[in-house]
Amino acid sequence: MNNKQYTLGVDFGSLSCRAVLADAENGRELASEAMDYPHAVMDTVLAASGESLPPNFALQDPADYLLVLEHVIPTVIARAGVSPAEVKGICVDFTCCTILPIREDRTPLCFEAAFRKNPHAYVKMWKHHAAQPYADRITDVARRRGEAWLDATGGTESSEYMFPKIYQILEEAPEIYREAYTFIEAGDWINLMLTGKGSRGYQYAAYKCHYLKDVGYPCEAFFAEVDERLRHVVRDKLPYPIVGAGMPVGTVTAAAAARFGLAEGTAVASAVPDGHVAAVALDASRPGDIVAVLGTSGCFFVVDDKESAVPGICGRIRDGVVPGLMGYEAGLCCFGDHFAFAAEKLISRAYLEEADRRGISPLSLLIERAARKRPGESGVLALNWFNGNRSILVDSELSGLFVGITLTTAPEDLMRALIEATAFGTRNIFDNFRAHGVPVKRLVASGGIARKDPFTMQLFADVLGLEIRIARTAQAPALGSAIHAAVAAGIYPSFAEAGAAMSGVGDKVFRPDPEAGRIYDLLYTEYQRLHDYFGKENPVMKNLRRIAAQGKEA
Amino acid sequence: MNNKQYTLGVDFGSLSCRAVLADAENGRELASEAMDYPHAVMDTVLAASGESLPPNFALQDPADYLLVLEHVIPTVIARAGVSPAEVKGICVDFTCCTILPIREDRTPLCFEAAFRKNPHAYVKMWKHHAAQPYADRITDVARRRGEAWLDATGGTESSEYMFPKIYQILEEAPEIYREAYTFIEAGDWINLMLTGKGSRGYQYAAYKCHYLKDVGYPCEAFFAEVDERLRHVVRDKLPYPIVGAGMPVGTVTAAAAARFGLAEGTAVASAVPDGHVAAVALDASRPGDIVAVLGTSGCFFVVDDKESAVPGICGRIRDGVVPGLMGYEAGLCCFGDHFAFAAEKLISRAYLEEADRRGISPLSLLIERAARKRPGESGVLALNWFNGNRSILVDSELSGLFVGITLTTAPEDLMRALIEATAFGTRNIFDNFRAHGVPVKRLVASGGIARKDPFTMQLFADVLGLEIRIARTAQAPALGSAIHAAVAAGIYPSFAEAGAAMSGVGDKVFRPDPEAGRIYDLLYTEYQRLHDYFGKENPVMKNLRRIAAQGKEA
Repeated sequence: MNNKQYTLGVDFGSLSCRAVLADAENGRELASEAMDYPHAVMDTVLAASGESLPPNFALQDPADYLLVLEHVIPTVIARAGVSPAEVKGICVDFTCCTILPIREDRTPLCFEAAFRKNPHAYVKMWKHHAAQPYADRITDVARRRGEAWLDATGGTESSEYMFPKIYQILEEAPEIYREAYTFIEAGDWINLMLTGKGSRGYQYAAYKCHYLKDVGYPCEAFFAEVDERLRHVVRDKLPYPIVGAGMPVGTVTAAAAARFGLAEGTAVASAVPDGHVAAVALDASRPGDIVAVLGTSGCFFVVDDKESAVPGICGRIRDGVVPGLMGYEAGLCCFGDHFAFAAEKLISRAYLEEADRRGISPLSLLIERAARKRPGESGVLALNWFNGNRSILVDSELSGLFVGITLTTAPEDLMRALIEATAFGTRNIFDNFRAHGVPVKRLVASGGIARKDPFTMQLFADVLGLEIRIARTAQAPALGSAIHAAVAAGIYPSFAEAGAAMSGVGDKVFRPDPEAGRIYDLLYTEYQRLHDYFGKENPVMKNLRRIAAQGKEA
Repeated sequence: MNNKQYTLGVDFGSLSCRAVLADAENGRELASEAMDYPHAVMDTVLAASGESLPPNFALQDPADYLLVLEHVIPTVIARAGVSPAEVKGICVDFTCCTILPIREDRTPLCFEAAFRKNPHAYVKMWKHHAAQPYADRITDVARRRGEAWLDATGGTESSEYMFPKIYQILEEAPEIYREAYTFIEAGDWINLMLTGKGSRGYQYAAYKCHYLKDVGYPCEAFFAEVDERLRHVVRDKLPYPIVGAGMPVGTVTAAAAARFGLAEGTAVASAVPDGHVAAVALDASRPGDIVAVLGTSGCFFVVDDKESAVPGICGRIRDGVVPGLMGYEAGLCCFGDHFAFAAEKLISRAYLEEADRRGISPLSLLIERAARKRPGESGVLALNWFNGNRSILVDSELSGLFVGITLTTAPEDLMRALIEATAFGTRNIFDNFRAHGVPVKRLVASGGIARKDPFTMQLFADVLGLEIRIARTAQAPALGSAIHAAVAAGIYPSFAEAGAAMSGVGDKVFRPDPEAGRIYDLLYTEYQRLHDYFGKENPVMKNLRRIAAQGKEA
């Protein structure tokens, strides 16, 4: 074991933190451990005061992060049977934009007695949506001024991003704004606790704070036009240097080593977003690589060596996935949620009884029955917009559709139509990338459905006309962080080498069946026509929402 | 009781016969009785031979009709406590075109030993579809010749009609064709058994045999072009006079009186179709009257004093409902079947458990929940074509659609969308009548849903912007026949008077709510746009059927 080198990936999600100890030679996951945050998400009541929170607040207590870290790191190191000194590097990924106000000495303001009952002193999570009016104001001014950074964001500032949250604090809790030394991403704050050095992860800054390489943050004149008090917000409130992905921000201090069971001097990598890091675990390191993360929703990360303007995607960021390449992100607002919906609400008594008798879930039964049909046989076509459309129409007011229903349509026909529709929606995204110059060649799929549902993955291969390799790892974000840590620790000179050695891509491959593909081509033509009709020509989906709102008020 | 006058309506359906004894003064139903045909429908095996029938055969044994008649007539007369002499008239309605070959002495050929095992000697029911190739041939020739009668039929000869069935017998069982004195509608044959006199009900001839008033049947040249052997089919095989609705064809003979428990000399009215006669029971006797028969499918009968060419309806026939008026028929291929489909296949475990706990049907639960929502609140819009579209698109290859589904859509939202869609489909039919000069003013609705589901009827009133009166009678066809009998017996001089006195329209009225109507107008605009798009512009529904067929063959 003397020559062995290990790295630690720590994945902070919305409700829990998971650590994975990986063998840096081959990416093998030796041990993992997860722990929930004791206060979870505070979205109705602030624990410290017992007082109600305003609507759309979503806060967390940073003390929870330290508590879980004190548990998961020593646990995985002990469980793997390695010594802390053999852990050569550590990297944290975290939900973002998830920010908190801290003192120059790195103490969160919410730890101080004076601010314990002030909601604005706590962590504002990514899904804290109460800053919407401030986001609207920022969008208005940026559009009027024609700010270049707005383009890469899709043309609208999100309430989930950093500046609206800071602006909300300035307006609603000026004392917090005044006292804060900086507003820091939670991932960067963990690094500050580990290393004693302040930094801002480049991908956080690029995706959530409109930081453009070679340009910087939005300018002072822009902020002054939003609100004169914000003119110097970057100069005054964002002091830390930006550090690129895979670069070390420092090493573990003696105090942190003692507290978290690490060895002093261990390399700590720049913190990263929890989504994109999964693409690193799945070896998206060459132009044309694409990673699908298929969960309740679906995310696609593509890397390429040139910058192309692609409409209808979530964003394009230089070095956004791995250094040296453009990172593109697109997505389906709804993936597995479709299937859960159908299994819950579009089922019959007979099927429920059969599932119970056989001890399987209704979802499994429906997929089993759907799998028995031939392509196109169900006669039903769907639009997979039950939670709106993220790419490529970027319209949250769209909704779902079924066409082709007859009296003989069975629940599995609707299930199959939904599975096919998510595949068609994916093909639409891939075609759009290709049409705008971004190659989409090598697909790796991860997530529970990718790993456990061969029918759906074969259908995707057939619809996409692409081989699909399946992720071996069930913990792509944490493994991705472990790869970041290996690069930061100097074990590999680049992400390409690190990914090739450590990535969690497995041997399982689904290869497209041309005969099935021929039928799916016919269905895809129909899908595309409905996609354009309901997405662009007939506003019935929006109108139905408007009429529904009238009905509620009537 | 001495002055009381009663009439008897006898309704022969597809599986059973029901008799109703009505008070001719007010239409009150004193007694009713039903009985199933012992041999039901023979569509797989011929009972007399035990041999399999070819595909699409649907036969009945006329002996069954006499058997049930011997039971139901004496039963209702006895149950009502009246004497046969007080029964002043009788009328039979029957499914049609439901025909049998008989001797001149009125004996069905299937009663004879020589033909007992010959399927073509039996009754061919309306839904005997095995004559399709013969119907196709008739359509081809009629179109080529530009036959005028084809227009009123909708441009296509149906395999359900009389001449294809006769042609099938000529081709497949020439000995039956040769031996048959005539091919007679089963309703007319019952009258022949009661009176000893041969007749052909005008509405049978008009709807099913292309008999046009003042013109007659299709001409000999036409039949000769179809097949030289059919040149004289009308002259040789249709000897009986045509008798209009409400006219007596004769009186009950002594033998029939003894056999069926009637009084000799009782007036017997011309036999009528079982569908249109329901409209008589619901007082469709003035221009602008419209009757909705809402069952698994939906039929609409309208009467007017002038003839108008209305596209997309099932037919227009002079005196087709009541003498002196044009009768128009239109329909929805699928009405209650939609709701049964949703309650069976679009439901959740939680709802099934709630329905079971409360001892109500899943359908009732879904309608109860749907009724709690405001108009438009569900956010879902449907196209009610789960069994194709009869009016006004006349396209059996269309199919059903839902749009507006989101992850929060509940099963009752889909149910409500289906109910609303059937109402929009009905409004579309009514608007089409009005646009082509046929007034639609006074609506009476009958059928189980009309009588038992106030939510759906109120919704229809709101969508249609029309008052809806609800049928009191649950047996509209038999009551309609009793009204025919009263006219034939001379108790009333016309259907207008008879209907006014005896009709089964109740006091229950649903009046439109203008505020709900305002919301439904918005939804109807969206429905119409989808109706035209999927009905005329985008052939996706047909394409999906074609792709499904490919999938099956693949």
